[in-house]
Amino acid sequence: MPAPLRLAVIGAAHAHVRYALDEVTLREDLVLVAVADPDPATAGRYAAEFGVPAYDDHRRLLDELRPEVVMIAGVYADRAEAIVDSLHAGAHVLADKPLCTTLAELDAIEAAQHETGRFVCLLLEKRNYPETLAARALLADGSLGELVQVASTGPHKLNRPTRPDWFLTRKGYGGILGDLAVHDIDLVLLLSGASEGTIAGLADSTDPEFALHGSLLLGAGPVVATIEVNWLTPAASPYHGDYRMRLTGTGGTAELFWAQNKLLAATTDRPPWEVELPPGRRPAAEALDALSAGLEPETTTAAGFVATRVALLAQQSADAGGVVLPWTDGQQRGQAG
Amino acid sequence: MPAPLRLAVIGAAHAHVRYALDEVTLREDLVLVAVADPDPATAGRYAAEFGVPAYDDHRRLLDELRPEVVMIAGVYADRAEAIVDSLHAGAHVLADKPLCTTLAELDAIEAAQHETGRFVCLLLEKRNYPETLAARALLADGSLGELVQVASTGPHKLNRPTRPDWFLTRKGYGGILGDLAVHDIDLVLLLSGASEGTIAGLADSTDPEFALHGSLLLGAGPVVATIEVNWLTPAASPYHGDYRMRLTGTGGTAELFWAQNKLLAATTDRPPWEVELPPGRRPAAEALDALSAGLEPETTTAAGFVATRVALLAQQSADAGGVVLPWTDGQQRGQAG
Repeated sequence: MPAPLRLAVIGAAHAHVRYALDEVTLREDLVLVAVADPDPATAGRYAAEFGVPAYDDHRRLLDELRPEVVMIAGVYADRAEAIVDSLHAGAHVLADKPLCTTLAELDAIEAAQHETGRFVCLLLEKRNYPETLAARALLADGSLGELVQVASTGPHKLNRPTRPDWFLTRKGYGGILGDLAVHDIDLVLLLSGASEGTIAGLADSTDPEFALHGSLLLGAGPVVATIEVNWLTPAASPYHGDYRMRLTGTGGTAELFWAQNKLLAATTDRPPWEVELPPGRRPAAEALDALSAGLEPETTTAAGFVATRVALLAQQSADAGGVVLPWTDGQQRGQAG
Repeated sequence: MPAPLRLAVIGAAHAHVRYALDEVTLREDLVLVAVADPDPATAGRYAAEFGVPAYDDHRRLLDELRPEVVMIAGVYADRAEAIVDSLHAGAHVLADKPLCTTLAELDAIEAAQHETGRFVCLLLEKRNYPETLAARALLADGSLGELVQVASTGPHKLNRPTRPDWFLTRKGYGGILGDLAVHDIDLVLLLSGASEGTIAGLADSTDPEFALHGSLLLGAGPVVATIEVNWLTPAASPYHGDYRMRLTGTGGTAELFWAQNKLLAATTDRPPWEVELPPGRRPAAEALDALSAGLEPETTTAAGFVATRVALLAQQSADAGGVVLPWTDGQQRGQAG
């Protein structure tokens, strides 16, 4: 067996750091070498759990240990710098969402990635849910005809007293559309295959530090999507969030009830039925399989970048009162002869 | 008993003409005096059913019979002229939606209404559904806190072979957002109480004559709404349309499942429950009660105008690729001292 991939954690403020740590526990081709976080208690807790060194300065970690893969799960506003430094130190990056909090940060990440050629894999776990895998199969086999319309909702419980201070500030957290909406934006881009379109967003402006809700209108090639996200799941609800997505095609519809583990479909010929679901996939499993084999993960660097860009443009639109903005995936297109 | 209101039908191309005809059958304070439609077969069928004269020229009907109330349910592109003529002949107007198909037509209707002072009541039947009445009660008693976010879907079966030729053309039908979206736009305006905001829309552009789907992002004061409509309910679905609307407030959520006769709510303190529903109301009943008593219907002239204006602006936005447009309810605001 080749030597295991050497993983470091840089930033562990968000519990999604477990996406990578779970893989350390479960697989033999991956070893954790260190944990860095500006908060010594946070770094120390995870470091102690795995018996590895803790760092408060991620640059020192990168210099001393030269990890091959870095998992990013820190304070949102700190992520861009950690990603850029990791890329320049030669590491591939796995990142919890959001990748970063501003378009300028995204530009810096993209520049560092182009310069170094390392992979940046945004861990968009909704891609791996059973309902998503089954819905993709329905689209792929033509059951729904051509996908033309998407509507999704991403409500979350705020549990305000449990949130750290940085989370409830615009500077630390970024905006709600740049954060919560990126999952569903990514799915619209993935399912539509679109490379350009338009985006407009509106968000709660009651508290300039922290918006409780945001909505957006996304044109993605021939597909039009409406997406709402919020921190307003009622406290007494049994769900953290009753996430759902409705896909409307020219030959059928499918509705993903992620929180209810259910996918309902109906087509021109077939009355509504509950679609049998495959097993889901762990959020970081495929990405580490790929990196371990020297390949690019399924959620490509380009896909994570464009989903992040569209989400940040939606936030920019909302900040400007809902102006419509164009987006492209940044790839050069062939010119018609 | 005072003499019954004298009702004429002008335009009977859409089956919603029954909204008024059902009232003729059910109540004694209303009498049908004539039916006009450019298509003699259409006019003749309803006229024969009620034993009244048929006209192909609505102006002759207005001149000869001077009805007090006119029900408008003709080809969408013909409605504005019929409404303007009816108002100038001194009649109040009940109108099936859409009120008209262009902003220029709406301007003409508004001008005629201002000049004559007659009421124009757009029959927005979703206001009268049991789920809507119950949801309004939840908002009114504070159960949901402040309403901040709305998401709705309005899918319909196309049944293309059953549609008349005019319906499948842009000129005869208008646009999908100007037509189907007006119900949910009206509810957002009603529930938010907003008097200004922004609107952006995107719609199917595959067939310039008839769009199969459209979506919009509506800012209405502090409320943000996403609305999708389409003609893509799968043929094998048990519903003509599984219409739904989700209301998110600062203290709770409510989801209206109109096609399923169900309203689910959850609040900060109370886990999800199915809300008991009151009886619904017939689409034209309250409006005719009001007109019979010399009063303005609950769905005011101003409400029908602003909902129509926002829907037509959404269509205009979609026609222009999704540009964001401001809207106001057209009322003069007091100036700060």
